[in-house]
Amino acid sequence: MNREQLIAQIKKKQSFLCVGLDTDINKVPKHLLELEDSIFEFNKQIIDATKAFCVAYKLNIAFYEGMGVRGWESLQKTLDYIPGNIFTIADAKRGDIGNTSSMYARAFFENMTFDSVTVSPYMGSDSVKPFLDFEDKWAIVLALTSNKGGLDFQKIEDKNGKQLFEQVLEISKNWGTDANMMYVVGATRAEQLSEIREIIPNHFLLVPGVGAQGGNLQDVAKYGMNADCGLLVNSSRGIIYAGNDVDFAEKAIVEAQKLQQEMAVILSDLGI
Amino acid sequence: MNREQLIAQIKKKQSFLCVGLDTDINKVPKHLLELEDSIFEFNKQIIDATKAFCVAYKLNIAFYEGMGVRGWESLQKTLDYIPGNIFTIADAKRGDIGNTSSMYARAFFENMTFDSVTVSPYMGSDSVKPFLDFEDKWAIVLALTSNKGGLDFQKIEDKNGKQLFEQVLEISKNWGTDANMMYVVGATRAEQLSEIREIIPNHFLLVPGVGAQGGNLQDVAKYGMNADCGLLVNSSRGIIYAGNDVDFAEKAIVEAQKLQQEMAVILSDLGI
Repeated sequence: MNREQLIAQIKKKQSFLCVGLDTDINKVPKHLLELEDSIFEFNKQIIDATKAFCVAYKLNIAFYEGMGVRGWESLQKTLDYIPGNIFTIADAKRGDIGNTSSMYARAFFENMTFDSVTVSPYMGSDSVKPFLDFEDKWAIVLALTSNKGGLDFQKIEDKNGKQLFEQVLEISKNWGTDANMMYVVGATRAEQLSEIREIIPNHFLLVPGVGAQGGNLQDVAKYGMNADCGLLVNSSRGIIYAGNDVDFAEKAIVEAQKLQQEMAVILSDLGI
Repeated sequence: MNREQLIAQIKKKQSFLCVGLDTDINKVPKHLLELEDSIFEFNKQIIDATKAFCVAYKLNIAFYEGMGVRGWESLQKTLDYIPGNIFTIADAKRGDIGNTSSMYARAFFENMTFDSVTVSPYMGSDSVKPFLDFEDKWAIVLALTSNKGGLDFQKIEDKNGKQLFEQVLEISKNWGTDANMMYVVGATRAEQLSEIREIIPNHFLLVPGVGAQGGNLQDVAKYGMNADCGLLVNSSRGIIYAGNDVDFAEKAIVEAQKLQQEMAVILSDLGI
């Protein structure tokens, strides 16, 4: 999916919601556990419940890889089930030397037809660039993450007071364009998004941590939104585990719609 | 495998060689392509050819993941085929928030019984620590990588002139011990290993890039070795693709043995 198509979907659905399919077999409602592929059945019902309200699905690859070969089958079936007009993210945090990153890129873009993959910047340009060689596919580079350990290295300042995540943004933005790169930016302190917007005004930002993890949607929009919206705000547990019984999909609808309606007001106020 | 067992194997075999199984279907000799699982057959013959000369195998996960479900099956069969007294490395460069890193750790340590996984430090302590919770298992943290992009961020200096990879070593060494953490350290400039040894005198270093990629074994040993050896030196292409015909395994023997003999001289000179 290209940038124009993504923006069109955001305008049409009045939503910049990404639903995170961090599907954990230990949290799947009991009545699904008898089925042959409980993970896929859970995802299928969540997708049916939320597809009207979101523009992206983010699949946390660890949760599937953790199940071995069966997990990869559930992942593939889930990906196939997601409607073609919804942006798909392989949240895999990959990154290696050039020829190895190329293998990962082919795995996620060609074998599995994801629209995008999250990528760690630590190994530099040749670890990210192989993900930029595919038409209408995206690398989503980790910049500032909202976990506690994110403070260990990402905020180290250089001689000029520039923090590491700012260097990552400034250096890496020249590896591609705002049509094939996005950034992961945590939302624990939304004001920081305006500093980030000074470095990358046009790129889309993938913002995790709204919902169950406590980020504030209004603040994220206030400081992070640009003229094309430029945001994908993720919620995983707050939606997919809103219920844990036979009515889990209905509860997911309620939570997804609540976020979408809040987003619609924000977008409408800005004339997007 | 624990630290003592690894050191015992190094002494017994007079080798600190790690053979990298970066097995690419496009480079497997033609006569193997008719077989049902060409990747495993290739690995099997390479393992038979080299197991007397090495103490570790490093499986580059991208090459298997790139083949989809079949690739994971080849990976599992390869892992099962490696003798129990040889250290196994999942070269996966994983790293995510805590609960997600835990999933990756379980995938590689419990489902697949690798001894170790390579991990990216960008997301900090909670992305690495879940890999340290398993007895006799190891996290191998990226510090200084030898690819060109390694220069983009790893050598950025802070206010006190300390480079990022040095900060990674200093901060992360306290997350675990030299019995459950190693570091990836590139060998393009071997002298840098002595600076690294000032920060982490006891940890094992996994050094890629000797052999086909051009690092110098003598220099790596001179600057990087400690009293327990403390090195695993990897060679991938230089061994596994030494030949590309029916005699590929014999050619792999020659290259692996050459490196082992060079290592034996180094170890013997130091009384290890």
